[in-house]
Amino acid sequence: MSDRMHMVNSFDPTSGTVMDPVQRDLLARRQVVLGAPYRLFYEKPVHFVRGEGVLLFDADGADYLDAYNNVPVVGHSNSRVQQAVTIQLGILNTHTRYLTDGVIDYAERLVSLFPAGLDQAIFACTGSEAVDLAVRIARQCTGGEGVIITSNAYHGTTSAAAELSPSLGPNNPIPPRVITIEPPRSASERTDVGDTGFAERVEEAVTEFGRRGIRFAGMIIDSVMSSDGLRTDPMGGFSLGIDVVKRHGGIYIADEVQPGFGRTGDWWGFERYGVLPDLVVLGKPMGNGIPISAVVGTAPIFDRFGSEVRYFNTFGGNPVSVAAAAAVLDEITDRELRRSARSIGKRLHEELTTLAAIDAGVGEVRGAGLFLALDLISAAGDPDRERAARIVNDLRERRILISASGAHGNILKIRPPLVFGAADADRLLDGLSQALSKSR
Amino acid sequence: MSDRMHMVNSFDPTSGTVMDPVQRDLLARRQVVLGAPYRLFYEKPVHFVRGEGVLLFDADGADYLDAYNNVPVVGHSNSRVQQAVTIQLGILNTHTRYLTDGVIDYAERLVSLFPAGLDQAIFACTGSEAVDLAVRIARQCTGGEGVIITSNAYHGTTSAAAELSPSLGPNNPIPPRVITIEPPRSASERTDVGDTGFAERVEEAVTEFGRRGIRFAGMIIDSVMSSDGLRTDPMGGFSLGIDVVKRHGGIYIADEVQPGFGRTGDWWGFERYGVLPDLVVLGKPMGNGIPISAVVGTAPIFDRFGSEVRYFNTFGGNPVSVAAAAAVLDEITDRELRRSARSIGKRLHEELTTLAAIDAGVGEVRGAGLFLALDLISAAGDPDRERAARIVNDLRERRILISASGAHGNILKIRPPLVFGAADADRLLDGLSQALSKSR
Repeated sequence: MSDRMHMVNSFDPTSGTVMDPVQRDLLARRQVVLGAPYRLFYEKPVHFVRGEGVLLFDADGADYLDAYNNVPVVGHSNSRVQQAVTIQLGILNTHTRYLTDGVIDYAERLVSLFPAGLDQAIFACTGSEAVDLAVRIARQCTGGEGVIITSNAYHGTTSAAAELSPSLGPNNPIPPRVITIEPPRSASERTDVGDTGFAERVEEAVTEFGRRGIRFAGMIIDSVMSSDGLRTDPMGGFSLGIDVVKRHGGIYIADEVQPGFGRTGDWWGFERYGVLPDLVVLGKPMGNGIPISAVVGTAPIFDRFGSEVRYFNTFGGNPVSVAAAAAVLDEITDRELRRSARSIGKRLHEELTTLAAIDAGVGEVRGAGLFLALDLISAAGDPDRERAARIVNDLRERRILISASGAHGNILKIRPPLVFGAADADRLLDGLSQALSKSR
Repeated sequence: MSDRMHMVNSFDPTSGTVMDPVQRDLLARRQVVLGAPYRLFYEKPVHFVRGEGVLLFDADGADYLDAYNNVPVVGHSNSRVQQAVTIQLGILNTHTRYLTDGVIDYAERLVSLFPAGLDQAIFACTGSEAVDLAVRIARQCTGGEGVIITSNAYHGTTSAAAELSPSLGPNNPIPPRVITIEPPRSASERTDVGDTGFAERVEEAVTEFGRRGIRFAGMIIDSVMSSDGLRTDPMGGFSLGIDVVKRHGGIYIADEVQPGFGRTGDWWGFERYGVLPDLVVLGKPMGNGIPISAVVGTAPIFDRFGSEVRYFNTFGGNPVSVAAAAAVLDEITDRELRRSARSIGKRLHEELTTLAAIDAGVGEVRGAGLFLALDLISAAGDPDRERAARIVNDLRERRILISASGAHGNILKIRPPLVFGAADADRLLDGLSQALSKSR
């Protein structure tokens, strides 16, 4: 099983990788009790025992630069999050069927970060739950079932979210009520006349739902199209596609699980495109690792849904998760992490572009803020998955964590915690430069 | 909207309930920002600011006896859970694609509490996610879609779990791939000849799936059938039904989100029935309010699923949630909470039976451990929803929290944290005795 069912950067337990005895024992125990559905990263998995800021430490005390994990957005072992959670755990942790203050305070603060109209929030625990709920709301409110997604989308892991996630591989069925379309082209590869190609593909999908006898419900798009290889600049073409969705009565759901909370330098990825979502899905970085997620939406849609269906998520909006989420907003604001994402991200983008210029095997450099991607291509211009894997594993040996993504696994994915500083960028660029040289 | 879409004990914001200015303001803000999908308990909602052990405190410092919440199983603001979470938040919180120790240690400990065969665990964050995953596994492994549930089941809130939850009301659609059957009768109302009625209903459902052209995947049952009104003694009849499921190649999923972790006096509710599940779903009390859930299952099923599908839940099995879950097991074990659930539960059962004997409006008293139910019935023997609501709201005025459940909302539901002691039982019985008298 060489490609581990299309999972990029997956450990193959049959590979015979040599590991130290502690790791080997841990891995054996893991395989007994966690079993087959679990996957590890890297040809040689990493064993972590501690984290701090942008660093993760292995059992020997060696530090790894984390240029991959977007959940610990304000840093591993963030003390402000720790303190907020500790205090709240000593006061109260209950559900939203009693009146409590924290969830209301936080919800007001959260929706104030969105354009007018996106005025209400529903809380859940994971991005998958929030995606599942947003799509359920879209279906309930339109009476339709048909949802449009991008061709290598990933939206989560519940049954309904997995249906929207062709990137999970060929054994993950995509039913007739879901249609995939090619994402908007990025600037450098744009061939659509007048930039209308994406809108035309949306129109065709809506027509195809009609042929299938399935009523159209809407479209869900990751605002940076991460699993499609990171598409951060399909400006005009994207908004034209959203117009088509709305014209057909569909609901546009912005999946902000990856781009949200400052990643792109803005609060939300959709801000780059001049579009206004009907529903927005939030997750991963929201609580810096304490499970919390949300759907933010318009009052008319929530009124419609809420008058027909009641929704209750036992842990959703619990005071402890909300305290963590409030501390994350405090940190992003007080430490000016959006500004830092923009400036460090800009420098990385420039220096990666310089590295790409001297390496014929690097195609496009894309990205926004602290989410960056490098296309690796062969001399013939084809996706170079093998080189991407070599670089990711070589960087692991250099104690730098990144990954690869995209439908062909050839796209290097750089997505560090937002507390990533100038010296961290130096270390990453240095390692990456060496790994690129070595793999040429 | 007098019945708030079949939700028992739901606040009606149009009722004109008089509240103090602080609560009124909070409620108004809540309605603006959380909106229509959210519901509150009680004719007059309660505003909580603090919790400790079995007590919740309102803004005036008044203490409410919690005889309802099963999430804070080892007590509100449990210091051992607080400490475990605080320590882990200062060390490491990452995902399962790196090797970490805690999740493996905990998984081994967890599966050791199950009968041989149930040897592996997959972690998620909520009961809904775990139900969704278990059903997805059952469908993947059988190639079928058809799932049998009880007639007023509740299994969660994702799209796939809501399909399995007719208790969510008439606007929540149950598709053809789900068939509801009457749960096993309890001893006192058993009319099935030879106790085989439940097995016959399972057989009929499997036959009906055949007629619909839908392949059978399995059955999911809450081991105490809580939303069906609490069925804790359908001994033989239940296991005969499971035999039918297995004979037809179906997978039996025990939903232990409510009964699990000592609630019934055993670790798991299914232990009462001499049945062996293929998959077990865990949730609510697992982390005392820190989101964590799991599916425990057999290696052959997980191997089959894992060889076809990869599953990754970003927050699932994160070290902080696992630390909370380990502290919960420590507390249940060290404080002998299963034994206490049995003994306090037995006394409550006896005294409730005494109260029932002098009140013609109380039918059956049911329960196991610290999960108890009283049927309220009219003189004609019909469900008495109104009296149940009066009692629940009267107890709220007496600062005792319980709720009502069942398809007709006439069943008083008593389900306190497991740290509920003898004096707490006195306070509950005293208040309930008065509320029963007053409502006669």
